[in-house]
Amino acid sequence: MRATVIYGAGDVRVETVPDPKLGESTDAVVRVVRSCICGSDLWPYADMAPDPRGQRIGHEFLGVVEETGSDVGSVKKGDLVVAPFMFSDNTCQYCREGLHTSCPQGGMWGYKGTDGGQGEAVRVPQADGTLIKLPHTEDDGLLASLLTLSDVFSTGHHAATTARVAKGKNVTVIGDGAVGLCAVLAAKRLGAEQIVLMGRHETRTNLGREFGATDVVPERGEEGIAKVRELTNGEGTHAVLECVGTKAAFEMGMGAVRAGGAISRVGVPQYEEGPVGPRMFRRNVSVTGGVAPARAYIPELLEDVLDGTYQPGKVFDRTIGLDDVPAGYRAMAGREALKVLIA
Amino acid sequence: MRATVIYGAGDVRVETVPDPKLGESTDAVVRVVRSCICGSDLWPYADMAPDPRGQRIGHEFLGVVEETGSDVGSVKKGDLVVAPFMFSDNTCQYCREGLHTSCPQGGMWGYKGTDGGQGEAVRVPQADGTLIKLPHTEDDGLLASLLTLSDVFSTGHHAATTARVAKGKNVTVIGDGAVGLCAVLAAKRLGAEQIVLMGRHETRTNLGREFGATDVVPERGEEGIAKVRELTNGEGTHAVLECVGTKAAFEMGMGAVRAGGAISRVGVPQYEEGPVGPRMFRRNVSVTGGVAPARAYIPELLEDVLDGTYQPGKVFDRTIGLDDVPAGYRAMAGREALKVLIA
Repeated sequence: MRATVIYGAGDVRVETVPDPKLGESTDAVVRVVRSCICGSDLWPYADMAPDPRGQRIGHEFLGVVEETGSDVGSVKKGDLVVAPFMFSDNTCQYCREGLHTSCPQGGMWGYKGTDGGQGEAVRVPQADGTLIKLPHTEDDGLLASLLTLSDVFSTGHHAATTARVAKGKNVTVIGDGAVGLCAVLAAKRLGAEQIVLMGRHETRTNLGREFGATDVVPERGEEGIAKVRELTNGEGTHAVLECVGTKAAFEMGMGAVRAGGAISRVGVPQYEEGPVGPRMFRRNVSVTGGVAPARAYIPELLEDVLDGTYQPGKVFDRTIGLDDVPAGYRAMAGREALKVLIA
Repeated sequence: MRATVIYGAGDVRVETVPDPKLGESTDAVVRVVRSCICGSDLWPYADMAPDPRGQRIGHEFLGVVEETGSDVGSVKKGDLVVAPFMFSDNTCQYCREGLHTSCPQGGMWGYKGTDGGQGEAVRVPQADGTLIKLPHTEDDGLLASLLTLSDVFSTGHHAATTARVAKGKNVTVIGDGAVGLCAVLAAKRLGAEQIVLMGRHETRTNLGREFGATDVVPERGEEGIAKVRELTNGEGTHAVLECVGTKAAFEMGMGAVRAGGAISRVGVPQYEEGPVGPRMFRRNVSVTGGVAPARAYIPELLEDVLDGTYQPGKVFDRTIGLDDVPAGYRAMAGREALKVLIA
């Protein structure tokens, strides 16, 4: 089959690789119907050291089950399924607590011999614990929204829920990328009253407004913090959803959060140390979030996507075929595209 | 009256100062019956720059109301009362949320012209919002335990509750000072199943065991982390209550916490930046805690202290008179005393 392999910074290729086949009795093979490129794929695309062996890539996909191992019971050949961005057994202690990202049987697509999502098909380990069955549809818009359950909408929801967003709370979302916009949507869904979106790309922030942002702050740093405070009676917001991952974004979050509030980070931190000193302490600010256990959230979010109440698939602003994936990376890295769908 | 004044590192004096009197109609004057020296008083005692004006000190006291302003309704002359370590109005938005430490009308004893607790009497601003009436008692043990509501027991409870300690959870408490020991007691009270106390002073850790610690780990750093993991199936504990405030303690907490768990800090951080990078993120660890809103917790904790179920007053291992306060500081700084009661 054809699949995407990254060989180093800026070097993404679509190549012929071995067809996936069942290994363990708990495996399934899924033919990919929709996948996409993630903002977090851009980190290795920016700085991966050259590796002649290459690394399979892509962790968001939905598709049709082609084959299942003898121990797989929850999905069968022909089912339309979505996969979270990490696989997991859904039976261990961590999975039962809803922290599927810490499942000892789990892992990330593309690593340790697993397939990546940006390919024609994927061998799915722990298929019963990983895949979620969807009703069949050929509606492009619905397929796009269902695909966001794999990562960005679930990740936005993780940010919102760990930061205790609830009815009547006010929220700052840092970052107008796909995760940031999905965090706006998730905050709206959880009842946030005021949602301040910090971002400076007007087409993106416009979608943010459509998703529920009540205010847009293009300023950054101290100036951005001052704007958020101005909008919140000088206090900052109960929740800050940090959807970027840079230290500057985290620092901005510390300035924008209300005393007693929480900053939830869902952008992978690109720093080892951050400002968690006396100022945070005196104000009883919490730092929470992390890698989103999408598997835990999909059943709940799925209903609202299926009935059309929420359309996170609007974050896709470009659709390409598999062979155009290298161009898709270039477009996202160059900020010409917000999020690229592979169909 | 006589009261304690700190003039710089190592320079604590008991002096004659003006008698407190009512200023605002919301004030009360309280004659101090018990006060004490706090571990956090040792920070200025260690490093305060010399200041010839001096600074009143002490933030834990209980006493008898001597006089009340015309707008004070909840306490009256002759009442025995305890004061949390910060005053607050108990009516603002923050107080209503239980975050009395962020009350705009609030403040810390000894600052901005207020009296410190280590003196004969205190003018109490916002008396209705601050003071909590106690039943009269002359029982020394009970008075000592009631005094811990002012700070250390409430602070231990803040650590435990913000780190989501609950029935069946396991907990690491870092630090065998008075707050650490009270955190053990608070974790026990909230139903923790396993409580690992990290400390190396045997008389203190023995009291920790009496308070509910199931394991004691004297090792520090990587060795200490390894011990906690050994005791918890390699996973670490759901909650880490960091009751020291050094960067080393925070780093140890990061190593000892279970994926999905929380580190609550109640020791004032003596650092500006800490390890909050990808490792914390991948494991979905939260950092929480801060300055404890003792006022919010006292009503709940009071009942269990009054009926003798919990005896946090056992943290006091030395009792002195007011004139001996300088010697009390020396004893605590030299670790000859765990916590010094002033009676």
